[in-house]
Amino acid sequence: MEKSKQVLLAHGSGGKLSQELVRNMFVGELANEALCRMDDSACLDAGDGRLAFTTDSYVVSPIFFPGGNIGKLAVCGTVNDLSTSGATPKYLSLAMIIEEGLPFEDLSRVVQSIKATAEEAGVCIVTGDTKVVNRGKADKLFINTAGIGVVPRGVNISGVNAKPGDIVMLSGSIGDHGMAIMAQREGFTFSVPVESDCAPLNGLVAEMMKVSSNIHVLRDPTRGGLASTLNEIAAQSGVGIEIEESKVPVKDAVRSACELLGFDPLYVANEGKMIAIVAREDADKVLAALRNHRYGIDAAVIGEITAEHKNRVVLRTALGARRIVDMLSGELLPRIC
Amino acid sequence: MEKSKQVLLAHGSGGKLSQELVRNMFVGELANEALCRMDDSACLDAGDGRLAFTTDSYVVSPIFFPGGNIGKLAVCGTVNDLSTSGATPKYLSLAMIIEEGLPFEDLSRVVQSIKATAEEAGVCIVTGDTKVVNRGKADKLFINTAGIGVVPRGVNISGVNAKPGDIVMLSGSIGDHGMAIMAQREGFTFSVPVESDCAPLNGLVAEMMKVSSNIHVLRDPTRGGLASTLNEIAAQSGVGIEIEESKVPVKDAVRSACELLGFDPLYVANEGKMIAIVAREDADKVLAALRNHRYGIDAAVIGEITAEHKNRVVLRTALGARRIVDMLSGELLPRIC
Ligand SMILES: Nc1ncnc2c1ncn2[C@@H]1O[C@H](COP(=O)(O)OP(=O)(O)OP(=O)(O)O)[C@@H](O)[C@H]1O
Ligand SMILES: Nc1ncnc2c1ncn2[C@@H]1O[C@H](COP(=O)(O)OP(=O)(O)OP(=O)(O)O)[C@@H](O)[C@H]1O
Ligand SMILES: [Mg+2]
Ligand SMILES: [Mg+2]
Ligand SMILES: [Mg+2]
Ligand SMILES: [Mg+2]
Ligand SMILES: [Mg+2]
Ligand SMILES: [Mg+2]
Repeated sequence: MEKSKQVLLAHGSGGKLSQELVRNMFVGELANEALCRMDDSACLDAGDGRLAFTTDSYVVSPIFFPGGNIGKLAVCGTVNDLSTSGATPKYLSLAMIIEEGLPFEDLSRVVQSIKATAEEAGVCIVTGDTKVVNRGKADKLFINTAGIGVVPRGVNISGVNAKPGDIVMLSGSIGDHGMAIMAQREGFTFSVPVESDCAPLNGLVAEMMKVSSNIHVLRDPTRGGLASTLNEIAAQSGVGIEIEESKVPVKDAVRSACELLGFDPLYVANEGKMIAIVAREDADKVLAALRNHRYGIDAAVIGEITAEHKNRVVLRTALGARRIVDMLSGELLPRIC
Repeated sequence: MEKSKQVLLAHGSGGKLSQELVRNMFVGELANEALCRMDDSACLDAGDGRLAFTTDSYVVSPIFFPGGNIGKLAVCGTVNDLSTSGATPKYLSLAMIIEEGLPFEDLSRVVQSIKATAEEAGVCIVTGDTKVVNRGKADKLFINTAGIGVVPRGVNISGVNAKPGDIVMLSGSIGDHGMAIMAQREGFTFSVPVESDCAPLNGLVAEMMKVSSNIHVLRDPTRGGLASTLNEIAAQSGVGIEIEESKVPVKDAVRSACELLGFDPLYVANEGKMIAIVAREDADKVLAALRNHRYGIDAAVIGEITAEHKNRVVLRTALGARRIVDMLSGELLPRIC
């Protein structure tokens, strides 16, 4: 593909072009140790303690969808990115860009969800900002949250830490969030309705950390889906990842919706799932801890880290074939989160 | 005015409706100690130290203007909000919402400015996010930065700390940013060109703090201008503020531009100015420190804190009259920052 001189929608897909833009334009130019790690949250020294710091903007359309809304999403997404470094999420900022004309009723419902979700996650919204732009210059509501968490001493969880032999597990089924947004946006009704999995996963991560100090990587497979996120980790750690297709949980309703619409669930966004890469000896304990939590009941081991095919993700299909699973290329579903 | 059921542009003005929206909808619902103080950055306990945390989204139009661009603004604004709590700004997050079709050349110029300004301010961009929305669903580029700073022990600078007898000073002339944006947006050319004052003020604040431990309030008069910001402080501290009109620095070019266009400079946004409210005995030292810094050469004492007319800002005009200066009502210049 020829290099575009303009930003394309695919530059926000969470896939290849996203990564290229972020690497070349932002991380490349603004380089420093924390940023260049390219983890979901930056770990920072703050005198005596270590902090995690992360940010996401939320531009999902529509702003209300089955299983949540942009407000719930804005809390969960940032809490989850903090959780990926093993941090205890503490403080959030809340910045709203509102399109002129947004009904107060909608704004109020969003704020109620923010409140409820922040309470569930045990985080405090301590600072904020509110901008309003003219009609037609934004789309209803964009939210940015940044988050600060505290990383307990001795904890070192990062995308660079996957080691050959490690076990790859997933906290539950994939594709729910993406297909729920898709259905809502396009007005599809499936025989079994699909709901977003949007959830704050800090409690789940805390349970895992209680039973193991050998969790090497945590990562939430959001834009770009499981396939893109595993590719990111493979590249960060310089390892191979082998996944067994039949072990990746996908709900029937999501699978049929994906088939109908021609999506591969491996590339569909999730907002309440965690990938955990764990030392082999602790895998059973961690899996049990996951399954014991309301957000991890469908958790499964889905594969392992290999020394072979470095930087690549390989899928073993049900029929025993192996295929390389690349990052998402192009844009699958714009404005999914 | 009848209560609107929809968000109006004036809800983003930095004036009355802004404050009402923020207070009723956000701060009211999400109430906690740090948030309810309504300072420009939240001061947080982090085990051993104290942190400042703040966020702003930047939606300025056009994204390039005389004296800066949206990238420079996004670093300065957040650095300045951290500086208002006497914090040393350390880490920034950088979240971009890009409209499909933005030329890479523009994006790159913005990133260069972010880099240069972060370097000047001595802050590190440690985490980020990049979303792309379809053409027509945003306007070129919106940026959010959140910032973390470290508050030295014993420092307690807040909008609640103004005391009768304190001296009010301003680090330089007002209205430059707003009029520069206005001119650029509307294609006006003034006989003397007006430039944005956009600048990172942490160095300036550090110089003030070196010479005095009796700085009670610092606040950057952004949206809503000097008048609205002083009203915020008067209300937070429950004091009166008296300002001498003739002492408020306004550049000739800005004054004539304002006259021409019917603006009152007291309500026009600034992006490189600081209000300092200081114990009377330290006023001379602090003023000297301000004037000694490149961003404070035009600094001036503009008034004082009074026990009378609590929660109000009173202006003494050149002719000796007194008038109450209220917060901005309605929207003066949308998308000024
Ligand atoms: N504009 C940017 N400037 C600096 N770093 C960025 C920028 N955008 C993304 N990054 C960095 O790139 C990495 C990946 O970011 P990305 O937003 O894809 O992760 P995520 O938040 O986990 O995913 P999602 O946004 O889908 O939830 C992170 O390390 C992030 O800090
Ligand atoms: N959406 C929001 N949620 C929670 N608090 C908010 C929100 N918007 C604003 N606030 C709070 O209101 C106060 C004023 O915010 P405001 O954005 O006006 O300040 P500022 O950043 O100094 O000004 P500007 O945005 O013009 O630079 C701050 O204490 C801020 O934390
Ligand atoms: Mg995220
Ligand atoms: Mg603000
Ligand atoms: Mg993530
Ligand atoms: Mg600000
Ligand atoms: Mg992100
Ligand atoms: Mg401010």
